[in-house]
Amino acid sequence: MPQIDAARFLQDLHDLRQIGKYRTGVHRPTYSPQDMEARRWLMERLEECGLEASMDGIGNVYGRHRGPGPHLLVGSHIESQNQAGWLDGALGVVAGVALARAGLPVDVCAFADEEGHFEGGFLGSRSIIGDLTEEEIDRSRSRNDGTALRDALAAAGLAGRPRLRIEPGRHKGFFEMHIEQGTQLEGAGLRLGVVTGIVAIWQWRIVIEGQQDHAGGTTMAERRDAGLAAVRLLAAIDREFPRICGERSTWTTGRILLDPGAPSIIPGRAEVLFQFRDVSVEVLERMEAGLRALVRESNRRERCAATLTQMSRATPALCDPAMMAALDAAAERHAPGAWQRMPSGAGHDAQYIARRMPVAMLFVPSIGGISHHWAEDTKEEDLVLGCQVLADAAEAFLKG
Amino acid sequence: MPQIDAARFLQDLHDLRQIGKYRTGVHRPTYSPQDMEARRWLMERLEECGLEASMDGIGNVYGRHRGPGPHLLVGSHIESQNQAGWLDGALGVVAGVALARAGLPVDVCAFADEEGHFEGGFLGSRSIIGDLTEEEIDRSRSRNDGTALRDALAAAGLAGRPRLRIEPGRHKGFFEMHIEQGTQLEGAGLRLGVVTGIVAIWQWRIVIEGQQDHAGGTTMAERRDAGLAAVRLLAAIDREFPRICGERSTWTTGRILLDPGAPSIIPGRAEVLFQFRDVSVEVLERMEAGLRALVRESNRRERCAATLTQMSRATPALCDPAMMAALDAAAERHAPGAWQRMPSGAGHDAQYIARRMPVAMLFVPSIGGISHHWAEDTKEEDLVLGCQVLADAAEAFLKG
Repeated sequence: MPQIDAARFLQDLHDLRQIGKYRTGVHRPTYSPQDMEARRWLMERLEECGLEASMDGIGNVYGRHRGPGPHLLVGSHIESQNQAGWLDGALGVVAGVALARAGLPVDVCAFADEEGHFEGGFLGSRSIIGDLTEEEIDRSRSRNDGTALRDALAAAGLAGRPRLRIEPGRHKGFFEMHIEQGTQLEGAGLRLGVVTGIVAIWQWRIVIEGQQDHAGGTTMAERRDAGLAAVRLLAAIDREFPRICGERSTWTTGRILLDPGAPSIIPGRAEVLFQFRDVSVEVLERMEAGLRALVRESNRRERCAATLTQMSRATPALCDPAMMAALDAAAERHAPGAWQRMPSGAGHDAQYIARRMPVAMLFVPSIGGISHHWAEDTKEEDLVLGCQVLADAAEAFLKG
Repeated sequence: MPQIDAARFLQDLHDLRQIGKYRTGVHRPTYSPQDMEARRWLMERLEECGLEASMDGIGNVYGRHRGPGPHLLVGSHIESQNQAGWLDGALGVVAGVALARAGLPVDVCAFADEEGHFEGGFLGSRSIIGDLTEEEIDRSRSRNDGTALRDALAAAGLAGRPRLRIEPGRHKGFFEMHIEQGTQLEGAGLRLGVVTGIVAIWQWRIVIEGQQDHAGGTTMAERRDAGLAAVRLLAAIDREFPRICGERSTWTTGRILLDPGAPSIIPGRAEVLFQFRDVSVEVLERMEAGLRALVRESNRRERCAATLTQMSRATPALCDPAMMAALDAAAERHAPGAWQRMPSGAGHDAQYIARRMPVAMLFVPSIGGISHHWAEDTKEEDLVLGCQVLADAAEAFLKG
């Protein structure tokens, strides 16, 4: 079995943490000077391991193994959310470096803008699988300050560079290590999560049209209160969804806007952002049918018209059974009984890479579940354990 | 019985409509040049009727009857909401002028800023009953543009003027005519509403504290979703309030704010603006008890803490039985069967004047219920009918 250099692995993580340091976390928005410094730092590390390092026209940093295959692809992303944690994607990239240092035949990639600082998001992983057009790059703007993506690429010195594509047939699979970004492992006293798949998010906008009126002059019987119709619909979802959901489904109302939103005015319009997530298309479709039925029921019962619009309908990315089995075995060897299989509720680069090759993901616990915040952290022994399990699983899967 | 000059009454209304004209309505925010022009126009009309006209330090225009009593006070307000209707308060003021023209012993007053362009609102009627301090005037600012009330008064030429107070014992009662600002009269095919009282608004803020988390990484069982707790509480209010409310009670959720309000983030905090209105303190207290019980129940059931804060707790202003009886009789004489008693769901100057003398209000229908909008209107025959009924009732009440 390969032996990772734990001290070196942790040193790499701590070195990278100094770039764009913000309190105990980092601030490295995509294509910022700090982000570009981190990408150049990574290229040096990749060359150190003997990989052939390059940066492409969307900012993907790629370290290509110079020897014969079969190869694996390993990585994640290196930019961070604003004022966010030091691990997140950086962990998966530095774990790739550690596997390369341990002599495994891996290509290591840091995909650009997984965090979606620019409209579209997942620019790097979508670009490398051929799912990002020049037209989308022309249109996309920063969600932080409106800067055009083209201008940001030019300012980062990336204008005109070609964009890398996955070499068909080169990789047997893609491994991505990541922090859990939740409390399931910590809550259950576990140290590793073998990811079964990355849930798809089906995002909806529900608009309810009523009649704006003065709250004083309008009797209850006369009202067409869009806000109240929204509350009733959301309460019905709260009652019905537990009966139709899957074991690990989630559903979330992130925003309720009442228009005009004044204390003495009956809302004439309500807008609700609602989403659900699951790894099973069958479950997602059952929840969609349930949602549509509840909206129809609202339109039969209420004097306000509800309209349902689907804003996104992704496909869940399922992890590869053989890769999961390799992770299971390695996890059980290094941490007997202290691991579980679990879906990933958050999106990851692996969901796009899964369209071109088998993928698998390994989670380590997030202390207190904190994520996308500078206080994010994971115990060093869990970081090292995860990296070693990843290395073992990579070797076993390559031999399998 | 006194006979109003219908043509002159309508001419006065249409003349006033030219001042600050906006489409078919008017734009006369408090202390604006248009508002001050309207106040000066009113002073001329008051002098024409033989009243002694003055304007005080808060902008109240007062026409004092020169003859012996007993006197009545009649009026309303003359400024408008922004780009709003031509009648609203102007109707009650011009009706007062019509009663004076008909020889009734009335003082006529246009109270400043009923519309609340400045913080505090009802400045004129609160000032004239001695319920507006110099300190509040020092603090108050325009809700439109932040101008200090002191600066607005100085710009309008009112700095340093004394403020009028009601002369104790001078008035037998106060009559205010107003448009309904609703559709109850129109919907029932009625032409007049004898107001039983002005509802009190008890305004509440409900803050629910949960735990902000990523919608992907947090299972349904782990969540402390402040938005969902708010939806459940509001749904419970929707179920319970019909069982405890009065016949004409209203309750309204005007605003729901989820923080941070993003599609993929479980809301960590929800803020709800909720109010109820009734003319009966007993009913208001029953609704308060119901609301407090539901919030306690929410705090027993939910993993989020709900806090209830009362933002305002007004006293309902009940109309005087003898004045209502005089309006009933006059209404039945001029429009047999085409009137009803009804509460006023909106606030009016009469609610403050009621603290110093008996008050009554008469409503005429709003076409389509439109109010606080330039399209606001009332049929001319209803305007004339209302003014004549007011005059008859005033005389009968004075004699009674």
